[in-house]
Amino acid sequence: MPDAPDHAPPHAPPHAPPLDLVLARRTLDAQPFSRLVRAEITAFGDGAATLEIALRDELRQQNGFAHGGVLSYAADNSITFAAGTALGPAVLTSGFSIQYVRPAAGTRLVARAAVADAGRRRAVVRCDLFAVDEDGAETLCALAQGTVRSVR
Amino acid sequence: MPDAPDHAPPHAPPHAPPLDLVLARRTLDAQPFSRLVRAEITAFGDGAATLEIALRDELRQQNGFAHGGVLSYAADNSITFAAGTALGPAVLTSGFSIQYVRPAAGTRLVARAAVADAGRRRAVVRCDLFAVDEDGAETLCALAQGTVRSVR
Amino acid sequence: MPDAPDHAPPHAPPHAPPLDLVLARRTLDAQPFSRLVRAEITAFGDGAATLEIALRDELRQQNGFAHGGVLSYAADNSITFAAGTALGPAVLTSGFSIQYVRPAAGTRLVARAAVADAGRRRAVVRCDLFAVDEDGAETLCALAQGTVRSVR
Amino acid sequence: MPDAPDHAPPHAPPHAPPLDLVLARRTLDAQPFSRLVRAEITAFGDGAATLEIALRDELRQQNGFAHGGVLSYAADNSITFAAGTALGPAVLTSGFSIQYVRPAAGTRLVARAAVADAGRRRAVVRCDLFAVDEDGAETLCALAQGTVRSVR
Repeated sequence: MPDAPDHAPPHAPPHAPPLDLVLARRTLDAQPFSRLVRAEITAFGDGAATLEIALRDELRQQNGFAHGGVLSYAADNSITFAAGTALGPAVLTSGFSIQYVRPAAGTRLVARAAVADAGRRRAVVRCDLFAVDEDGAETLCALAQGTVRSVR
Repeated sequence: MPDAPDHAPPHAPPHAPPLDLVLARRTLDAQPFSRLVRAEITAFGDGAATLEIALRDELRQQNGFAHGGVLSYAADNSITFAAGTALGPAVLTSGFSIQYVRPAAGTRLVARAAVADAGRRRAVVRCDLFAVDEDGAETLCALAQGTVRSVR
Repeated sequence: MPDAPDHAPPHAPPHAPPLDLVLARRTLDAQPFSRLVRAEITAFGDGAATLEIALRDELRQQNGFAHGGVLSYAADNSITFAAGTALGPAVLTSGFSIQYVRPAAGTRLVARAAVADAGRRRAVVRCDLFAVDEDGAETLCALAQGTVRSVR
Repeated sequence: MPDAPDHAPPHAPPHAPPLDLVLARRTLDAQPFSRLVRAEITAFGDGAATLEIALRDELRQQNGFAHGGVLSYAADNSITFAAGTALGPAVLTSGFSIQYVRPAAGTRLVARAAVADAGRRRAVVRCDLFAVDEDGAETLCALAQGTVRSVR
């Protein structure tokens, strides 16, 4: 986690992605649940955000795959951050749909979210979730579409 | 967590809710991510399942409410377990939609899922998620609808 | 179609269900596409609305069942009208999810929508769609969940 | 509508997109509801399908925009046809989510659907719906994501 600049807001609004990667990481780090999951933001800007999670055993279900709840967390949060690049930092996700298509095996989960449409105060964001194995090969395991609204 | 009977399957299939509450709890306990979240099943049977989570600080976002990812996990998992009461233990959730309607404050999250339609190998399940305060007052904070399929 | 009272608004806002069944029917009748489909509102009030459609041949797909698009129209419109009972006449549907569970055979389609949660300016509505045969027996054929917002 | 070749199946299964544009058009033409709406297929192949509808008055709601039910029909059907390019002719749409983002004004509706992921018997398809004005300018008015399964 890089140092965050001093001017970062000490009390960001709920689901508030800031305007560059450093601030996005600081916002993510201000979410205790994201720290529990140990999620990282690896890209943020221009209508898109990427969230990555190392798939340690604690994140799995009973058969060794990443739990569906880990994927839905990654979809929810990457959708919110991607929308923040278009709507500004004060945003809330209204809801989303997710389809699971393959079990998430491997060592890493990558959620890539991109704004598909943005109005002044509302964005629709699509997200693809990939499981990544030790060699870096990616397998698409879920697809999501969500709506985010700016607050105030 | 109550003792589970000896005849419980040691290696249940993915998302495999057993046929009574004791076995449902054993299945939940076999999910490392559900242990990390500390989810509990408090009702299981007759087309319905209830999942409860004490809202400790680790499960919150930056403003003190339960993280959306905790709610989506609870929706995903309670939908799967409710479907298991109708389809048997070997089921997989294909996907779901969730709408967030209010911030989840309070000390406890309760997800109540009920089968709305079941075929032989597919169930559509609806789930209401409530935040519960110290006095037991419930506030509806999200609504979900998902599809679950039996495997084999 | 009953006579509508004189005080009905001549130019209702988009998706604007009025406050009783007579006005609801007048609003539906002001939608050319609903006239093309020949949809009827048979209940309206207290957070719920029922839309019915006689399944003439023109509404079918190539195998004789009601086309999925007829079901999605009925879900969309009944969700909007149900929300209108809670939010007032000026509402717009933001979106919805629909799951098809059985082919819609029979002579009539009935969409029953009910508000599951209403805020001041937003409602989440669930809808069950039934195919009805000549003897009045109902078969559940689709389930939907949508979000509606008030406009001004 | 071009002439269809003699070898076209006389009784195609429900939602059965054939393997080229001519057969796709014949299948669409075998859907009475698609004829009522006067939908056309203008592209079909390689994981994608485009459905177009001239927005005559009969397809509008009370304020002159295309009815939401017309958009949901176009999403449903274009998603099914796009999946047919990957899964073969015998497919059924399990369900979809649609978000409306702008009123559909203009003279024409274009629904572009593309397979985002295909397994052996299941595809997830995304669809963008545009309103087109007299000068051919396109405005995005809805976004959808659906799941289609092969039958037999």
